[in-house]
Amino acid sequence: MQRGIIELSSRPSILSAATVVGKKEMDGPLARCFDKYDETDTFGMPTWEQSESEMQRIALNTAIDKGGFKIHDIDAIFAGDLINQCTSSGYGLANFDAQFFGLFGACSTMAESLVLASMLIDSGKYSRCAAVTSSHNCSAERQFRFPIEYGGQRPPTAQWTVTGAAALIVGEHSGAPYITEVLPGRVTDKGITDNANMGAAMAPAAADTLKRYFDESGTKPQDFDTIFTGDLGFEGSGILGELLMSEGYDISGVHKDCGLMIYERERQDVHAGGSGCGCSGCVLAGHILPEITAGKLGRILFVATGAMMNTASLQQGLTIPGIAHLVCIEGDRADG
Amino acid sequence: MQRGIIELSSRPSILSAATVVGKKEMDGPLARCFDKYDETDTFGMPTWEQSESEMQRIALNTAIDKGGFKIHDIDAIFAGDLINQCTSSGYGLANFDAQFFGLFGACSTMAESLVLASMLIDSGKYSRCAAVTSSHNCSAERQFRFPIEYGGQRPPTAQWTVTGAAALIVGEHSGAPYITEVLPGRVTDKGITDNANMGAAMAPAAADTLKRYFDESGTKPQDFDTIFTGDLGFEGSGILGELLMSEGYDISGVHKDCGLMIYERERQDVHAGGSGCGCSGCVLAGHILPEITAGKLGRILFVATGAMMNTASLQQGLTIPGIAHLVCIEGDRADG
Repeated sequence: MQRGIIELSSRPSILSAATVVGKKEMDGPLARCFDKYDETDTFGMPTWEQSESEMQRIALNTAIDKGGFKIHDIDAIFAGDLINQCTSSGYGLANFDAQFFGLFGACSTMAESLVLASMLIDSGKYSRCAAVTSSHNCSAERQFRFPIEYGGQRPPTAQWTVTGAAALIVGEHSGAPYITEVLPGRVTDKGITDNANMGAAMAPAAADTLKRYFDESGTKPQDFDTIFTGDLGFEGSGILGELLMSEGYDISGVHKDCGLMIYERERQDVHAGGSGCGCSGCVLAGHILPEITAGKLGRILFVATGAMMNTASLQQGLTIPGIAHLVCIEGDRADG
Repeated sequence: MQRGIIELSSRPSILSAATVVGKKEMDGPLARCFDKYDETDTFGMPTWEQSESEMQRIALNTAIDKGGFKIHDIDAIFAGDLINQCTSSGYGLANFDAQFFGLFGACSTMAESLVLASMLIDSGKYSRCAAVTSSHNCSAERQFRFPIEYGGQRPPTAQWTVTGAAALIVGEHSGAPYITEVLPGRVTDKGITDNANMGAAMAPAAADTLKRYFDESGTKPQDFDTIFTGDLGFEGSGILGELLMSEGYDISGVHKDCGLMIYERERQDVHAGGSGCGCSGCVLAGHILPEITAGKLGRILFVATGAMMNTASLQQGLTIPGIAHLVCIEGDRADG
């Protein structure tokens, strides 16, 4: 019998979190949530790829600093990103003197790293771990689609890759916010081939994970203050709602999508919303966790989704597999 | 104080292992060790990328089958590969009904997946996990260098990417071979920029991990029947020996490199030896583990190394960071 939900009885805490974003994110509704930004999006580096690495470096440094830690307080780093061979993480975190687990979960990376880090902390293998991820609009666009200078037309279902990096320090329990349960995702492929509609490709993975979670835990969506998905955008969020409704779970009223929170969709011309590892990572670190700490949210699900294709697989006509990892994060609601 | 070596007191066992290789590997000295191969290297698929995915699918199927398991006996799969966005794993393992952790550790992937899987089994979070990886000469060559049809000249320090996939099933203790200790790697960058000399880029990472292991455990190289490194090749193996000698550890006599074992270097014209995630994965699964089961090896270190660059980072003049994860695997030596 396969194990599903893993209960973390020691309730590992998220001890510190930091975010680094670009200009467009600072023009959005969550601007006041972010720690650092660079008006030029370059972070002082000569290439967009190096800018993204630099954002990870700054994010981890800031998270360590905000928590009052030193690098030697961190047992291991769990990190990944969208760039080929995850070089934003490899280069960005190379000079930290810490053990390193490279992950690839596409835009689900922040949840994947939290699942692994919190299980290993709960088991006593580690005391304190970092979870780090990033995306950069310019490095992602030129790798997956076209250089931005090309000015390619984007269809309405397309999402806007967030320029952002997030770093969390997870450790033994010491108050809210803390992680109580995790549920890793399964690779789910429902036949979507349109790389300008990642939301549709990832929604079935989110539905699979959430259905498994509700079925096994006996909970219903309304048992949570909010169910946050990572970057389904406008298109994918609608599909997720329909898929879960057909399974008997109504998430309307409790569902929010990080891709629809980070930008003002119409005014900022981001089409179906934000995406990229940095999107759900920054919304979690900059907005959701502080709301839990402040007692405004009591128990939430964080379900980050990833699309696991590459340019070659799409050119070869393959469909887009998705994955969604789930983390249940809790605090003490101010209103009881 | 950062944790280093993690001792696995329950000694998780490697319950089953399977390998799938190509024609060149079947022409090498370890031919009799491999489970499945395809004379055409295509595995019936229309593109090299899909061939590599298919190899992972066959390898995992075979490992499950050899162990007498069903997919529902597997709690989670840990998998990764060299292809952009790790699509060999994403597509190859999409149809297995199991939770999935995508990893990126370049050629260190098999060790990284064993480190994570065995820690989670030792802690009781999981009962049984799969560790899967692959590489394919033709998909790797055209992604990282040139399509093979181009016939580019390769320098003597270049390694030959192995066409191979390996899958291991790790579970609760039930005899040899079993995992007793793990030590994750740190990202190590000593300034190598030559992408035709990966051995030199990765050797410092292997030296860092082994030095940390010997220092902390109080062991010396001669306490192990063999120290297997993953794919340093001829060039990198020499550098590793020198680096460790300068730290007071003499590995000559006990060190073997998977990249130097899988091919007959001169006759098969592979220059500095084999490489790719599939190299150390297949040598471990096909050769090392059976030797432990047979009592010919008692206690070994498996140290798989990865180079964490991509084509863009090299074109931009960056150096090549390396990483090396260590797994101590034991059995009962026939001679005592």
